[in-house]
Amino acid sequence: MIDPRVAAGLRDLGPMLAIPREALLATFRRTFAGFGFVPIETPHIERMEVLTGKGAGSDEVLRQIFEVTNTGGTRGELALRFDLTVPLARFIAKHVDELRVPFKRYAIGSVFRGERPAKGRFREFVQCDFDTVGTVGPLADAETAQVIHDALGAAGIPKYTIALNHRGLLDGLLDSLGLADRGGAVLRALDKLAKAGRDKVRAELTHPCEGPRHPGASPTTILPSDQLWSQLADLADFADLTDEPQEPRGAGLDDDQARRVLDFAESGRGGAEVLARAEAELGSQPRAVEGIARLRAVLDLMTAGGVPESAWRINLGLARGLDYYTGVVFETTVDGWERFGSICSGGRYDDLAGLFTNRRLPGVGASIGLDRLLALLDEAKQLGTSHTTAPVLVAQFPGVEPTAMVPLATRLRKVGIGAEVYPEPVRLGEQLGYGSARGHRLAVIVGPDEHARGAFNLRDLATRSETKGLPLADLESAVAKSLGIPIGVTA
Amino acid sequence: MIDPRVAAGLRDLGPMLAIPREALLATFRRTFAGFGFVPIETPHIERMEVLTGKGAGSDEVLRQIFEVTNTGGTRGELALRFDLTVPLARFIAKHVDELRVPFKRYAIGSVFRGERPAKGRFREFVQCDFDTVGTVGPLADAETAQVIHDALGAAGIPKYTIALNHRGLLDGLLDSLGLADRGGAVLRALDKLAKAGRDKVRAELTHPCEGPRHPGASPTTILPSDQLWSQLADLADFADLTDEPQEPRGAGLDDDQARRVLDFAESGRGGAEVLARAEAELGSQPRAVEGIARLRAVLDLMTAGGVPESAWRINLGLARGLDYYTGVVFETTVDGWERFGSICSGGRYDDLAGLFTNRRLPGVGASIGLDRLLALLDEAKQLGTSHTTAPVLVAQFPGVEPTAMVPLATRLRKVGIGAEVYPEPVRLGEQLGYGSARGHRLAVIVGPDEHARGAFNLRDLATRSETKGLPLADLESAVAKSLGIPIGVTA
Repeated sequence: MIDPRVAAGLRDLGPMLAIPREALLATFRRTFAGFGFVPIETPHIERMEVLTGKGAGSDEVLRQIFEVTNTGGTRGELALRFDLTVPLARFIAKHVDELRVPFKRYAIGSVFRGERPAKGRFREFVQCDFDTVGTVGPLADAETAQVIHDALGAAGIPKYTIALNHRGLLDGLLDSLGLADRGGAVLRALDKLAKAGRDKVRAELTHPCEGPRHPGASPTTILPSDQLWSQLADLADFADLTDEPQEPRGAGLDDDQARRVLDFAESGRGGAEVLARAEAELGSQPRAVEGIARLRAVLDLMTAGGVPESAWRINLGLARGLDYYTGVVFETTVDGWERFGSICSGGRYDDLAGLFTNRRLPGVGASIGLDRLLALLDEAKQLGTSHTTAPVLVAQFPGVEPTAMVPLATRLRKVGIGAEVYPEPVRLGEQLGYGSARGHRLAVIVGPDEHARGAFNLRDLATRSETKGLPLADLESAVAKSLGIPIGVTA
Repeated sequence: MIDPRVAAGLRDLGPMLAIPREALLATFRRTFAGFGFVPIETPHIERMEVLTGKGAGSDEVLRQIFEVTNTGGTRGELALRFDLTVPLARFIAKHVDELRVPFKRYAIGSVFRGERPAKGRFREFVQCDFDTVGTVGPLADAETAQVIHDALGAAGIPKYTIALNHRGLLDGLLDSLGLADRGGAVLRALDKLAKAGRDKVRAELTHPCEGPRHPGASPTTILPSDQLWSQLADLADFADLTDEPQEPRGAGLDDDQARRVLDFAESGRGGAEVLARAEAELGSQPRAVEGIARLRAVLDLMTAGGVPESAWRINLGLARGLDYYTGVVFETTVDGWERFGSICSGGRYDDLAGLFTNRRLPGVGASIGLDRLLALLDEAKQLGTSHTTAPVLVAQFPGVEPTAMVPLATRLRKVGIGAEVYPEPVRLGEQLGYGSARGHRLAVIVGPDEHARGAFNLRDLATRSETKGLPLADLESAVAKSLGIPIGVTA
């Protein structure tokens, strides 16, 4: 006998989670499509050098990659994708002439990271990415927030907050402090503010700078190693990260500089007034001024697109990525469930595919962490308990020909009502027990008497009340009425 | 610069294929759900011994497996799934107590086979499986055909034929010829009848039997190596298979026996009369009699479920798998496109998960070859040419505030009409060119004059006709009318 367990860090999803997961995905696909984002499919397996950038990738990336080898194949040539951004970059570089820009794509799929397995940290998880490539204007930035807003609303999430920032503001602050070259290290430290707290971040900010171990803002890198680090394996925020092996890094700031940076980050949370304060403080810094103007344009367009003020806030401490994002950045938390971390993050980048093409492809996009959102909804008891996709169970009464039962289910399906016929004529009680346990709402029962009279009984499996002797001709309308739904297309 | 190519045997799908692919998947999910099949998710990565059956798998399986190794991991421990059946078996063995049977699941996902790359043969492709586990009755057999019928009908495939057979008939014939122990070899040969022709199959049938290289009907094997062989990498039927390395195998029949077997297989195609003829020939063979009775029960239930006689035929030559299937087997071809091979195949098995549990789990299921179907529809020019998911493009007229355009798209989305706002205020002609090339049907244009008057112009991007000066208040109704669709939910 072989042990039917899954490998460490992987997992099965049974119907109770997979059913709402499918529903979320359908909602997201519909939302993306409504904005004109189109699906593309790229393989789960990519060439190694595509993923590692010919070895230019950080140690983090290399450490997390799953290599793939087939019999007779050479090691080190193929690997599983660790996100959907690198495949997008490769795809666009390869097909840009046929696609033309602007190009809006969504992609939904599994990504793989060889994380050390830990509680709530998985080696395979699903990302739902959407990006607009080939545009520099604020409209696509704002639309990113609109999509987040519409997708979460359609998914039934009652209250959430989209936090926004712009790289230019912190750049402007650092410019004003004479620290223009410390952007990467400062962002890396600030990125931990929510999780690690002010003291730890101050320590990192003031720790001696170790030189360009991560060489900093190369606009051609496509490897968001910072994202890998900060997003970890999607659900990583649940896990205790204190035991994570972290190399000591520092930004080399003095105490006063660190205080200025931290005050700026921590006080810069709120509505549009935050931008006014920042303008007063940094009005002479061109990069900050540009960032403030862009954020204002984005907020105006978000408002025009129906995103209410209650759904967003400025957060000048939002770091989100070291060198990858160059403009607006987003993070989204569900109100009251902030401990689950961001369920949708993204931002604007200058150059998506610099490793693969000379063509400069700026864009903006974000990624919904499906599995994190699902875990949150599960924890919030928002997922329901049904194990079935069909509300109706048609029982197979022992002694009544099953050919009499099958057409009833077919009739219900034709009006859009899912109906399952119990596959064997076992004892009726067993069938009803199955129906209740699965979460079917109604059972259609035709015993020999009903069969002779062209009638059926309709049983509510939750309340156990049963209406007897309904005419078979009324099957669709009686079931629809009991379910409280309008009848769909008639046959 | 890194070459943005995909690895050999893999491929990208751009929007023109990915959009109809998504639509097919949504159709299949809806169909599966309508019958009460529930989704489950298992990882793409499984433990090696789960996939290879502790090395009991055939050479075919081992040769095709993609190994997966992460940094620091041990080789040979993990691999990519090559189908969705083995993961289902493992899943059910692991979770059977919480699930209880009968259990109806569907699963849609990529599977991976390290095939030698060739034209039309891919190393990654999508399967859409549905199975009912834990039932032995004919109803679930018939329902399999019903699902195929409903799914293909809903997908807009005009005419298709579900071929049915039952293992028992050929077993009965072989019993009558005193060849009961040659079932495996005979099926393996017959499986090639459609592709290789009668002469080649006769040669294989009469080639000396080499003894139990494949030990034959072990009911505990979960490795449908025959399926791997006959389905190859899903699209394999397109490729020229003559150069495939095949070990010589024979069934050791004499000429007369081979003729009887071939005549039986080739003449046994048609409606229910085929069963009457088979009954006349094999009425004294218990295994054949049982198979005929089961097929008749299944056909009655299929008819009751709305599958018309024109959608199926009996094919006594249908082999479909060596030891895996034990009862009814199915294959489905699109009429006129038989050269694409079967787009949905399956059958009944005695014991799904014998490698993982002592619990005997009989069932029946089938798998839709999504990518094969998509290739067929593409070849048949049934896919359309749209590159967009949104019918409407809202232009961003230079000089008109984009905050005036964004709400128009939002209004259209609220009534269920996809609308994309062009992301930058470039020259109008360029925006309309983008819209035409993408396949947007309508453009909403608001120039400064229209903006001042609260009006808009509606342009048909195919005919280039434009209706000017429509009142903005009528946006939704005017667009819906032009698209010829009813307006959905109002805001």
